[in-house]
Amino acid sequence: MAGRNHLYVPGPTNVPIEIMSAMNVAMEDHRSPTFPNLLTPILQDLKKVFKTETGQCFYFPATGTAGWEVAITNTLSPGDKVIIYRYGQVSHLWAQMCKRLGLDVEMYEQTWGLGLPVDKLEARLKEDTNHQIKAVLATHNETATGVTTNIGLVRKAMDAAQHPAMLFVDGVSSVASIDFRMDEWGVDAAISGSQKGFMLPAGAAILAFSQKALKATETAKYPRCFLDLTDQMNNNKDGSTPYTPSIPMLYGLRKALDLLLAEGLENVYARHFRLAEGVRKAVAAWGLTTCAQEGLASNTVTAVVVPADKDARHVISHAYKKYNLSLGGGLTELAGKVFRIGHLGDLNEISLLGALAGVEMAMLDSGIAITPGSGVAAALEYYRSTAQ
Amino acid sequence: MAGRNHLYVPGPTNVPIEIMSAMNVAMEDHRSPTFPNLLTPILQDLKKVFKTETGQCFYFPATGTAGWEVAITNTLSPGDKVIIYRYGQVSHLWAQMCKRLGLDVEMYEQTWGLGLPVDKLEARLKEDTNHQIKAVLATHNETATGVTTNIGLVRKAMDAAQHPAMLFVDGVSSVASIDFRMDEWGVDAAISGSQKGFMLPAGAAILAFSQKALKATETAKYPRCFLDLTDQMNNNKDGSTPYTPSIPMLYGLRKALDLLLAEGLENVYARHFRLAEGVRKAVAAWGLTTCAQEGLASNTVTAVVVPADKDARHVISHAYKKYNLSLGGGLTELAGKVFRIGHLGDLNEISLLGALAGVEMAMLDSGIAITPGSGVAAALEYYRSTAQ
Amino acid sequence: MAGRNHLYVPGPTNVPIEIMSAMNVAMEDHRSPTFPNLLTPILQDLKKVFKTETGQCFYFPATGTAGWEVAITNTLSPGDKVIIYRYGQVSHLWAQMCKRLGLDVEMYEQTWGLGLPVDKLEARLKEDTNHQIKAVLATHNETATGVTTNIGLVRKAMDAAQHPAMLFVDGVSSVASIDFRMDEWGVDAAISGSQKGFMLPAGAAILAFSQKALKATETAKYPRCFLDLTDQMNNNKDGSTPYTPSIPMLYGLRKALDLLLAEGLENVYARHFRLAEGVRKAVAAWGLTTCAQEGLASNTVTAVVVPADKDARHVISHAYKKYNLSLGGGLTELAGKVFRIGHLGDLNEISLLGALAGVEMAMLDSGIAITPGSGVAAALEYYRSTAQ
Amino acid sequence: MAGRNHLYVPGPTNVPIEIMSAMNVAMEDHRSPTFPNLLTPILQDLKKVFKTETGQCFYFPATGTAGWEVAITNTLSPGDKVIIYRYGQVSHLWAQMCKRLGLDVEMYEQTWGLGLPVDKLEARLKEDTNHQIKAVLATHNETATGVTTNIGLVRKAMDAAQHPAMLFVDGVSSVASIDFRMDEWGVDAAISGSQKGFMLPAGAAILAFSQKALKATETAKYPRCFLDLTDQMNNNKDGSTPYTPSIPMLYGLRKALDLLLAEGLENVYARHFRLAEGVRKAVAAWGLTTCAQEGLASNTVTAVVVPADKDARHVISHAYKKYNLSLGGGLTELAGKVFRIGHLGDLNEISLLGALAGVEMAMLDSGIAITPGSGVAAALEYYRSTAQ
Repeated sequence: MAGRNHLYVPGPTNVPIEIMSAMNVAMEDHRSPTFPNLLTPILQDLKKVFKTETGQCFYFPATGTAGWEVAITNTLSPGDKVIIYRYGQVSHLWAQMCKRLGLDVEMYEQTWGLGLPVDKLEARLKEDTNHQIKAVLATHNETATGVTTNIGLVRKAMDAAQHPAMLFVDGVSSVASIDFRMDEWGVDAAISGSQKGFMLPAGAAILAFSQKALKATETAKYPRCFLDLTDQMNNNKDGSTPYTPSIPMLYGLRKALDLLLAEGLENVYARHFRLAEGVRKAVAAWGLTTCAQEGLASNTVTAVVVPADKDARHVISHAYKKYNLSLGGGLTELAGKVFRIGHLGDLNEISLLGALAGVEMAMLDSGIAITPGSGVAAALEYYRSTAQ
Repeated sequence: MAGRNHLYVPGPTNVPIEIMSAMNVAMEDHRSPTFPNLLTPILQDLKKVFKTETGQCFYFPATGTAGWEVAITNTLSPGDKVIIYRYGQVSHLWAQMCKRLGLDVEMYEQTWGLGLPVDKLEARLKEDTNHQIKAVLATHNETATGVTTNIGLVRKAMDAAQHPAMLFVDGVSSVASIDFRMDEWGVDAAISGSQKGFMLPAGAAILAFSQKALKATETAKYPRCFLDLTDQMNNNKDGSTPYTPSIPMLYGLRKALDLLLAEGLENVYARHFRLAEGVRKAVAAWGLTTCAQEGLASNTVTAVVVPADKDARHVISHAYKKYNLSLGGGLTELAGKVFRIGHLGDLNEISLLGALAGVEMAMLDSGIAITPGSGVAAALEYYRSTAQ
Repeated sequence: MAGRNHLYVPGPTNVPIEIMSAMNVAMEDHRSPTFPNLLTPILQDLKKVFKTETGQCFYFPATGTAGWEVAITNTLSPGDKVIIYRYGQVSHLWAQMCKRLGLDVEMYEQTWGLGLPVDKLEARLKEDTNHQIKAVLATHNETATGVTTNIGLVRKAMDAAQHPAMLFVDGVSSVASIDFRMDEWGVDAAISGSQKGFMLPAGAAILAFSQKALKATETAKYPRCFLDLTDQMNNNKDGSTPYTPSIPMLYGLRKALDLLLAEGLENVYARHFRLAEGVRKAVAAWGLTTCAQEGLASNTVTAVVVPADKDARHVISHAYKKYNLSLGGGLTELAGKVFRIGHLGDLNEISLLGALAGVEMAMLDSGIAITPGSGVAAALEYYRSTAQ
Repeated sequence: MAGRNHLYVPGPTNVPIEIMSAMNVAMEDHRSPTFPNLLTPILQDLKKVFKTETGQCFYFPATGTAGWEVAITNTLSPGDKVIIYRYGQVSHLWAQMCKRLGLDVEMYEQTWGLGLPVDKLEARLKEDTNHQIKAVLATHNETATGVTTNIGLVRKAMDAAQHPAMLFVDGVSSVASIDFRMDEWGVDAAISGSQKGFMLPAGAAILAFSQKALKATETAKYPRCFLDLTDQMNNNKDGSTPYTPSIPMLYGLRKALDLLLAEGLENVYARHFRLAEGVRKAVAAWGLTTCAQEGLASNTVTAVVVPADKDARHVISHAYKKYNLSLGGGLTELAGKVFRIGHLGDLNEISLLGALAGVEMAMLDSGIAITPGSGVAAALEYYRSTAQ
């Protein structure tokens, strides 16, 4: 099929050619005396992205899923109580993992389309007077519904309850795209992955831990080796890794950090907001709604609700087969009800307007009555009015 | 600047990642016994693209400009008369070259926006009873105006005049994108370049010569070495080249040929027509016109005429600076009057719809009163209705 | 520093440019309907490399270390007894992992330079009449000492003892380089990684499990998620993965399999033997010995013992700093006593002869009295006499 | 065939992976307002490589052969007299070109293995009292014989004769590898190519012209277009090019210049000398001689003379087929008598020692009685003693 695939799933995202080129390197000995010159600055610069000065960053040759497990098994012990609200597939899977790992999971259902209910959390933490709850698990950006939870308010709720639980935050689809403030928000474990805001292929869990969480590794009773934080700490302090690292991924991450820091993190966030806002204008112009409720919409992914008598899966499969446009599907309870447009990473207006045009074609072909060009028009008028 | 550049000039065109990867090769000895296994099939497969069985194809490590000069200096002699119609910058430059090389150039002006006037040509050739005219030079696709001339009709005119002149055709922006039939049209020299329909970086003149033209090399009196066809013929017959070739370019061309032949040339042409037709629908929806007059519009580039009180240069510079969209400018007498959208090579609907949205933004920003989304809507409705 | 680095550590190995180019791909949606066309044949072709028809292969986005843990935690339970012989750093680390994971580890010391003592194993298994030992852990190729254990004889010992323990084999530095016969040898879990014989960057644990091992996943009591085999099985059966995969790594593995199968596994093994044999001829010509005792030498890595009054670390650091040659160091108890030459993956005679010349320079510079050129001469005479 | 090809022809040379990666770029509009930011500094930095402050550098999308023709046709007119000494295939071909272009070529035979006879040149120029000779053509490094001519002495001879002829120097296999001093030596046209010292693929003629030569373009009567210098000058002054440039080649050249200037030109020359000297030590140790006579040996290529009863072609074809080693052949009158080892560009000791080992294998296989390892030993002892 001629022409490129248009990739608008919320991960993996497009890897810019500068990063692909930076990954085209010869393999090298990861035990050479010069290797630390590569690794150490990467780990330092990651702290800027997570906005932490007191925490420590880690690179695991694994995935975001592994990142969750690193956080849990290195700081908690089987039977420990954690609290989690389930408001999408990401939070669902994380809760599932906690159960499988034998934690005492206090899970509450929350409407998909909303975020973490901070008032309820505060109330529950206040009840927990003997501090049985060891950790609060919060999904910053729920990729399945396109909802962003304000983690600052989560921290405020925890503080209001004067509760000492650790705060674990899934930032897989937010870090390096949506404002994330590890230290300010008192995050104890932040989990991200390479294939979203970091604009790299999948293959790395990129993590940040507070000193409190690192201290907890000493008492955590989970058996663990590959995902052990202590092995990383022991090696990283000399600029080495506990296992053979992917040389291309490290050089790619080096380049990604260079690009992010050169653009400026605040500019990166502003760009994601602006691109996302255009998508939201388009959705409104189509007469449709987002899964995310008012004020909660994510800047990295938009879940668009199709009319009740239509099947979003048709839109998605049609977009892929006819127009080489990859959209994200609705997961589990949202299957068929929404399609998702990922708009994070290396992206600009025209790319996204093309994708919106493609979405219009696929919706029209699927019998969804929108005015052709209406979404594109709304988005481009917004982009024009906000262009610098 | 985040996100990719959107390249819609009529060359260079986007090189698909498959070709970029195919070009990532180690250098190799071009005098090795295995090198002919690379070169010979390339030269053979090029014949399929030019649609010639009796002609011979050549690869010069140069550019399309060099290709013109190869055709002239290898088949003609200083002072020979050639006829050329000037209907755009390409034909203008070719005529200029002929003059600089000391040919007796019979050049006729033709309105820019029209193609070669075959009736006038026929009349003139009929007058030339003693066959002073040695070659007819025709630009198949005039990149500057977005006009395609029917070369079959040029041949018909020449046949009607029973004139033995050679027919040289500039196919730089047509070959491998717009139907080209070397043998059927009796083309004696066809000139193309790597950076358009062949989807490669610039750096190769890709040529085809008829036996008649090859025979003419024996009598051509121009001094020439680098651009000498005989050196190529002598070397190519054993699968070698007269100068050190670019190994990446050859592997890239191998891949380009594989892609073109796998898609099928007729499908390649149909895709270009369909993509171009969408652009034309957009132009009409904007209430604008193309430089190309009715029925002559090119399938690889569209020159859009801006309202008389507007400057197309503003559209172009604005598109580039604000939206990272590269459009082609109006050349010489068209400067400021048109902007050009290149739509050839590795391209599909969504890419092009994004570009059209970008064009809308740049036009609106330049004070050109179009209805936002109107062009995109027209194009996407056309693409939908013709999708397979 | 001009010129390339010469990488002769036993991993990562040189990634051939064909594989680097194959990895230069656009990201794609791993949930697209076409993704299984990529993954499923890879998993099938891996079975050819492991030589298993009844087993099942897995690709984990992790490392060989993770592969060990996958084998253990998916088939055993805390407190289970395993037997392992410690004859190098690899077997040492594997034993350490078993202890950290809470297994009852029966570990026996074996001279470094020897392999697994099959007679002792057989005797011990015969004693274990009530079959307390659940698994035998064998390192096929001990990377630290350059010793290959005959796994066929391990199987023979287990059969002779009529013991039902599972057989786990670390094949990280053997699979795809040294003959490996999963089914014939009755291996229940075979662990490899991407960065050695598979000629890829690090970042994948490549595993094979017997039906017996897969059955054991049902009773294994280790908490596990990221490293869970069942998640892989459930997803792989439809050609999907439980986590976002690295698109470049999968395309790279596809290419690696194509290269390995095109060369033919038996030819791959023969090439590794021949290259290694040349290195051994060189070591003998230098008047030195290998760490591996007679008949046990590995075909993928050679550990060279330096004279007792010399420090191998000087050879290694000198080789790197002066000649851009990366050699492997002696690990723990071998530190300073040996340097290691990795000779696996994408390699041929001349590359290796260059490395041997570099080793000679570094040894001479370190005061090791060898005859300059002697090792290279011995190796090249062997290569000449065995060239095809 | 497993393992890399070992490329030791005197061009194309190995392109370092940093340059290959730098060439992996998206195409871009060469008429954009930012394009001059790429081109202009390249043309400026080239002046450093040619060591000219008063001259001007040019990049032609062509080859070294074209470079010769540029020099001739832009500064001379048909019938002009030039003087050239023929001491190898390069000078032979250049003389041939001059004849084909209709110059009055005064060519003198010189023994292959020697360089330009400056005393004879001086004598001849003194005779030419009415200054009929318009240009002296000198091949700085005769690639066919591995002989370097001292261009400073050529200039001295011309000055001694007080002759105003222009001095054209072929530096294809010397510039960026062997000391070249355009201004100091009063060179009027210096011709190089991308595929040797510049470590790029073939595809660019890289040229430098003195003001005197540029002035001569005004009177040169050769018909020319593609190879016209004036078109380049007119375009380059604004940072543009007369034809569509190869975007990857320009980015590659940018990187090559960065690498060369970072290493430092004097260091680049010293490295080439040292590597070459090792090869010469090897040749002596083999008991063989170089084609180059005493004191004239090139630092970029060594032509090794095989014993009279042996055929160098066997060595070359054997090296390629058996060991994947590409050597240069003897050209025309040297065919069968010599093989050539190219040692220029991105290279270091170990790579070259591997090649020497390969040469030993191929010679031994061809019945040339050398002591195995002797050449490698001599070279490595030299490299050791001169390592920094």
